[in-house]
Amino acid sequence: MKGKVYLVGAGPGDPELLTIKGLRLLKQADAVLYDDLVSPEVLDLVSTSALLQNVGKRCGKKTITQEEINLRMVQLAEVGLQVVRLKGGDPLVFGRAGEEMVALRNSGIDYEVVPGITAALAAAGAARISLTYRKTSSAVVFLTGQHASGQHQEDWHKLVTSGATLVIYMPGCSYSALATRLENAGLNPSTPCAMVSRATAADQQLRITNLAGLRSMNPLPAPSVMVIGDIVQLAAENNDALLFGAMFAFSKDHAATEGVTA
Amino acid sequence: MKGKVYLVGAGPGDPELLTIKGLRLLKQADAVLYDDLVSPEVLDLVSTSALLQNVGKRCGKKTITQEEINLRMVQLAEVGLQVVRLKGGDPLVFGRAGEEMVALRNSGIDYEVVPGITAALAAAGAARISLTYRKTSSAVVFLTGQHASGQHQEDWHKLVTSGATLVIYMPGCSYSALATRLENAGLNPSTPCAMVSRATAADQQLRITNLAGLRSMNPLPAPSVMVIGDIVQLAAENNDALLFGAMFAFSKDHAATEGVTA
Repeated sequence: MKGKVYLVGAGPGDPELLTIKGLRLLKQADAVLYDDLVSPEVLDLVSTSALLQNVGKRCGKKTITQEEINLRMVQLAEVGLQVVRLKGGDPLVFGRAGEEMVALRNSGIDYEVVPGITAALAAAGAARISLTYRKTSSAVVFLTGQHASGQHQEDWHKLVTSGATLVIYMPGCSYSALATRLENAGLNPSTPCAMVSRATAADQQLRITNLAGLRSMNPLPAPSVMVIGDIVQLAAENNDALLFGAMFAFSKDHAATEGVTA
Repeated sequence: MKGKVYLVGAGPGDPELLTIKGLRLLKQADAVLYDDLVSPEVLDLVSTSALLQNVGKRCGKKTITQEEINLRMVQLAEVGLQVVRLKGGDPLVFGRAGEEMVALRNSGIDYEVVPGITAALAAAGAARISLTYRKTSSAVVFLTGQHASGQHQEDWHKLVTSGATLVIYMPGCSYSALATRLENAGLNPSTPCAMVSRATAADQQLRITNLAGLRSMNPLPAPSVMVIGDIVQLAAENNDALLFGAMFAFSKDHAATEGVTA
């Protein structure tokens, strides 16, 4: 009898932000194929008897191709194993699960998606930024830093200038170039933005600034997401920054710490 | 000593999709203020010794105002209780947590946000729709059916025609009116869409159609979300619909069932 594949979201890093179902499946799995973004603390929850393989592709270093990952999932399920394909955040948001579902379907392997806390929600929670706010922010957009280039230029303009709260996944290391792209798309340099690095991890960091200030900011450790929009101003107040435009750090246990002027 | 307020996301309904942290906080809470969208199965996890109050406002029937909810949270924390403010989905996505954070800050009450699985992720998982897909869908927009009206008209047009996958929260009961607004904004009547009702609950339902077909569809039970975009076509295939444009139902345990022609 064939096994089954569970496409499971590991959430942002804090193992307590895994779902109860995700935890159960990790404990029961015969094999776990995981991405680089999955935290060691989450991997510690996997049954010690399970096969465990890192199939991550960090920083473009492809040690394994997507096709090989697809094949591995299928092979493990075909010999009857219960397989967890474990992805950082949520499987269906910038997670390549679309291609994996097609591969599983084409091979006749039963599968199920188990959602996880995507990076945008983790970062917003850590930074106390409400992604929507009555009257001022009635939509949210998730996009990537890469989205700005090439054929998607027109779409990027529409999304960026829509008035929605923007959450940029994988903002890259050149904050200055990102600020330029956002300003070229029509955003004012004074638009508030928050960079959240390694949200929910012990070494998480938050910087609040605006697009002009973003240009002089040193890159924070990945993974990080950037939240852009007027709503970020309120978050600055929620985090006890006395002056908007000041950058400040926060610790995990107490989100409000002293301001560090940029 | 003052207590603390935890703004906790209860997820979509299935109690196994609560986070481990959310479960721990529900077990430890002295008081839980919950919304109507929180499922009975999740409420069953609350400690039996905790104060439990429904502060929901269903279908516009305001039994309690937002200001009263804010005051209640503050009062409970001021007498030293650990309070969970429990919201369906994620607190920071269409959840009014922004206003509650301001009220807590103004009252000097310590608080923390604990993310939850928002409805879009739950619906996408249940319907096996990858919200992003390499090359075809590189952004996702969360918005509401109400967003279409009034001052946000221009923004709505930009978001709807951006090429991003759209997830409409609270699509309302008039699917025909919603289809008209989407078409007026520039979408083709053939644009694929999926309506997911009560995702992850035992009675969840999925219909896949297009904007033209949406007009003749009977409203599904709330809460529901609608996913719009070319990516939905792939979901139809993932759910074994033989013909695109056919509507079909699915059960919780096996997402792929027989097609029912519209």
